[in-house]
Amino acid sequence: GSSGFSVESADKKNSIKLRGLLQADSRNYFSDDNPDINNEYTLRRVRPRLQGTFFNIFDFDINTDFAPAAAVVQDAFINARIQPWFQVQAGKFKVPVSLERIQSGGDLRFVERSYVSDSIAPNRDVGLQIHGNVLNEKLNYAVGVFDGQFDGQSNGSNRDNVANADGKEIAVRVFATPFKGEDSVLEGLGFGLSATRANGSDQAVGDSYRTPGQRNIFAYNGATLTDGDKTRFSPQAYYYNGPFGLITEYIKSDTDVVRGANSDKISNDAWQIAASWVLTGENNSFRGITPKRDFDLNAGTWGAWELAVRYHQLNVDDKVFEGPAATRYASATSTTEKASSWGLGVNWYLNKNLKVQTTYEQTSFDSGVAGVQDLEDEKVLFTRLQVAF
Amino acid sequence: GSSGFSVESADKKNSIKLRGLLQADSRNYFSDDNPDINNEYTLRRVRPRLQGTFFNIFDFDINTDFAPAAAVVQDAFINARIQPWFQVQAGKFKVPVSLERIQSGGDLRFVERSYVSDSIAPNRDVGLQIHGNVLNEKLNYAVGVFDGQFDGQSNGSNRDNVANADGKEIAVRVFATPFKGEDSVLEGLGFGLSATRANGSDQAVGDSYRTPGQRNIFAYNGATLTDGDKTRFSPQAYYYNGPFGLITEYIKSDTDVVRGANSDKISNDAWQIAASWVLTGENNSFRGITPKRDFDLNAGTWGAWELAVRYHQLNVDDKVFEGPAATRYASATSTTEKASSWGLGVNWYLNKNLKVQTTYEQTSFDSGVAGVQDLEDEKVLFTRLQVAF
Amino acid sequence: GSSGFSVESADKKNSIKLRGLLQADSRNYFSDDNPDINNEYTLRRVRPRLQGTFFNIFDFDINTDFAPAAAVVQDAFINARIQPWFQVQAGKFKVPVSLERIQSGGDLRFVERSYVSDSIAPNRDVGLQIHGNVLNEKLNYAVGVFDGQFDGQSNGSNRDNVANADGKEIAVRVFATPFKGEDSVLEGLGFGLSATRANGSDQAVGDSYRTPGQRNIFAYNGATLTDGDKTRFSPQAYYYNGPFGLITEYIKSDTDVVRGANSDKISNDAWQIAASWVLTGENNSFRGITPKRDFDLNAGTWGAWELAVRYHQLNVDDKVFEGPAATRYASATSTTEKASSWGLGVNWYLNKNLKVQTTYEQTSFDSGVAGVQDLEDEKVLFTRLQVAF
Repeated sequence: GSSGFSVESADKKNSIKLRGLLQADSRNYFSDDNPDINNEYTLRRVRPRLQGTFFNIFDFDINTDFAPAAAVVQDAFINARIQPWFQVQAGKFKVPVSLERIQSGGDLRFVERSYVSDSIAPNRDVGLQIHGNVLNEKLNYAVGVFDGQFDGQSNGSNRDNVANADGKEIAVRVFATPFKGEDSVLEGLGFGLSATRANGSDQAVGDSYRTPGQRNIFAYNGATLTDGDKTRFSPQAYYYNGPFGLITEYIKSDTDVVRGANSDKISNDAWQIAASWVLTGENNSFRGITPKRDFDLNAGTWGAWELAVRYHQLNVDDKVFEGPAATRYASATSTTEKASSWGLGVNWYLNKNLKVQTTYEQTSFDSGVAGVQDLEDEKVLFTRLQVAF
Repeated sequence: GSSGFSVESADKKNSIKLRGLLQADSRNYFSDDNPDINNEYTLRRVRPRLQGTFFNIFDFDINTDFAPAAAVVQDAFINARIQPWFQVQAGKFKVPVSLERIQSGGDLRFVERSYVSDSIAPNRDVGLQIHGNVLNEKLNYAVGVFDGQFDGQSNGSNRDNVANADGKEIAVRVFATPFKGEDSVLEGLGFGLSATRANGSDQAVGDSYRTPGQRNIFAYNGATLTDGDKTRFSPQAYYYNGPFGLITEYIKSDTDVVRGANSDKISNDAWQIAASWVLTGENNSFRGITPKRDFDLNAGTWGAWELAVRYHQLNVDDKVFEGPAATRYASATSTTEKASSWGLGVNWYLNKNLKVQTTYEQTSFDSGVAGVQDLEDEKVLFTRLQVAF
Repeated sequence: GSSGFSVESADKKNSIKLRGLLQADSRNYFSDDNPDINNEYTLRRVRPRLQGTFFNIFDFDINTDFAPAAAVVQDAFINARIQPWFQVQAGKFKVPVSLERIQSGGDLRFVERSYVSDSIAPNRDVGLQIHGNVLNEKLNYAVGVFDGQFDGQSNGSNRDNVANADGKEIAVRVFATPFKGEDSVLEGLGFGLSATRANGSDQAVGDSYRTPGQRNIFAYNGATLTDGDKTRFSPQAYYYNGPFGLITEYIKSDTDVVRGANSDKISNDAWQIAASWVLTGENNSFRGITPKRDFDLNAGTWGAWELAVRYHQLNVDDKVFEGPAATRYASATSTTEKASSWGLGVNWYLNKNLKVQTTYEQTSFDSGVAGVQDLEDEKVLFTRLQVAF
């Protein structure tokens, strides 16, 4: 089925589910003067996944990923649903910051996420979170404490306390769907706010930003160290109505840094707005789209088709490019202070398990270093074949 | 069962299968002057595997492997069986070149594959393939486009475009079984032809050749770069009749290389011929052998027994050893221009899931470098205990 | 269920079981002057596991682990239960040495194992073992031959013959439960003896010892090589009676080493004694504890609670610290000749699948190097949330 294959224990009190997500992508880069950018076929996500529930209260999730060169675990957590409004979750899971990050990798409308979630928001981390739904399920909250991750990073080694020393990163998120379940044109409206805060010093700042084409365009110099607070702040919203869907979010990341004699608070930010329209009339949603009629050559039915359009932007603080290379906060090869991308997507849902996705994304860059030219526009065409269950 | 354990979705339209392949090997090297060659116990394949079908048309396969130091995915693909004669497959899978490579790692008659598939043919790659059976299922064809792999290599990182820059590697294979399903002494005859072609430059030539005992005996110098075309060509055949089986194939790999001021087309090749005889009368086949009577001490039945014999040879182009070490194409430690191996195998099929395999393989080497002695003969005895389902 | 979810083949002759173990830990270090010791959240074990049986005789076990930075396989073996008293096991599995090592990672009474199994006994290795139960199942024996592992090490790469060259490591263990199944106060008594022996030379001695807080405190200098025999010897016992449980073991590891002109037999040892008491009256056992009443807020039931206490000690031979750093066997940063730890644990079994574990462990160190101060006491509080099935 669309949500896995179940096996129950003999006493019916417990169950597990086998799930999977497989994405085979092609990436074509156009007009690339840069010989380092190669067209390629790649496995983007290969995720056998084991979920389960014990005694109707305790859930677990083990979501492995074989797309990286060495297999890793993306999610590995236990969630105790003590009450709908009071749940305790521990292990490795998505830090509750970016809206698009919380959307499953199999439900994305574009082949790659926007700058908000791909570059600035943290990805997964190991920690403990209290969360739940209150006010008639119209408000979802999450408060968590984590090892702490730099912008765009995941707790990869499962061993390192990345952001700071003995401290932790606190993450808070509230998200409201005030008209949920009501007969209103705003039924599909959701909006929220998230924030993180960590404190650390003397560690290399590991923030790393990249383009839709998955090329790194920004990193700090190895001598640029943390020197106090790291905070993030992100307002976010979505709206779904019939075949129409809209998602928008903003994120700002402030980091106290020091390099040699210089120290500053660096403010980087990003935002995105994306809309999609299901041409074949199915209901749009934050999760996936289920075709009314599955693709079937004999029956002459063609599944669901969706058009999507997006604009997103990344802004790096001017201060990181100031001064000569020998004292600059940014790495020597990082010169871009602004990246602006627009994307166009055509998504074909053959049935609830199969999807073919095509995204074209074009990015222009503004150099932040005097005398250094803007990077050439990135023009990339993605094609994805996906199985999800 | 011999082909996995199935779980169906509630609506019976979809199913998944859990499969596995586990091989525990011992390797004993005889008369080895070389202290670097150690006898060892090793896990050769540890492959939990998830296969499935959606809507009776879309297959997927996720074949993981935990035998390497870090777990990898061997196969991860989606196959759309639009028609028996028109199927589209995308993801990571075996490049359709060598006959023995296409044979499953659990069905091999010798513990390690021959030079044809282990040294020269590519292994797995990420790409897209059109394939199918035509002419009453008597002709199988496959045409694929892949990232491109050097001889004996697999797309290991899932990220790199190995063989060439923006280009791709094209692979084509046709294989005929003209008497399939007929009452003929040639019913079990199959023969075919495969070829690959890629074009690239300025990359270190990553071809790497090794002995049956899994020791590397050939690599290029790091300064030897690709400089144009890389093509392969491989005629191949098998024949099965009752308890008898025969497999033979040849492969030639031509690579345009350059090192400093010198450039050349290098032609390396390999061939093998292997025969097997099922002593207990079961039918031989390209796939596995299913014993008529399972091993059972109480019933006094002993499963199936098979004898196998093989000869194979690897030839490296003389040109790679010409000149002084400072300008030679081959790496400084590569001196063998010819390796010739004969092998003897005894295979015990306890039942459709269990197999005990013993292979003895002896290899003699010819030095291609003037004044350098031939390597000492390699004599290796393998024992394998295998579970497959 | 507590022991996995089963799927049977259609012919009922074969079955597989899906199992899992997930542990999310927090580690808090107190009074640490050392800035390298960070509090952290960490995934300790993330182990999807596939077990099965074919023809009621052949078992297999594939126990993967995604807690390390790159996923590995912990166990991968085939066991042929030819007779209860004659079983043949091949692949990668726990070397039959330490009693606590043989206890499953999900059944431990303390968050980390003692010095006996964590530092000195080998962990997993690849090899072949004959084992079984004799004398009315009152005596268990195991005799195995393995690649060979240094103290505290596992066969991690699956490729290397760690302990010695062409030789192997032999391991033997006998364990008696003479009153098993009898109506006796000694019904739950078990005691045994294990030993290993390997021979090798010219390899860096890879023994590595660590604290309960998982910090490495001892390693040899890279120039200290094996120079003959490596033997281990370990008497061991447990006793379970109603809610009470006791486990104790000793281990001694003798290694012939050489560094430059010096050579010696080094004798390191460790011992532990640990007791636990199930406060809620359930039966204690070497395996897990199953609560009489599952945790249920509505029913007002609280599962099972257990108190545990332990003392253990590690002794490193004085000889490794003798002489100047330039010729000493120990590494330059290894200065501890004795580590003594006491631990206190509170374990809460919510039901047969969920466990919350808290361990406090305090360790004092004695320096073995003249003029070098003892390491500061390690004080660590572990909390673990565990799902096992």
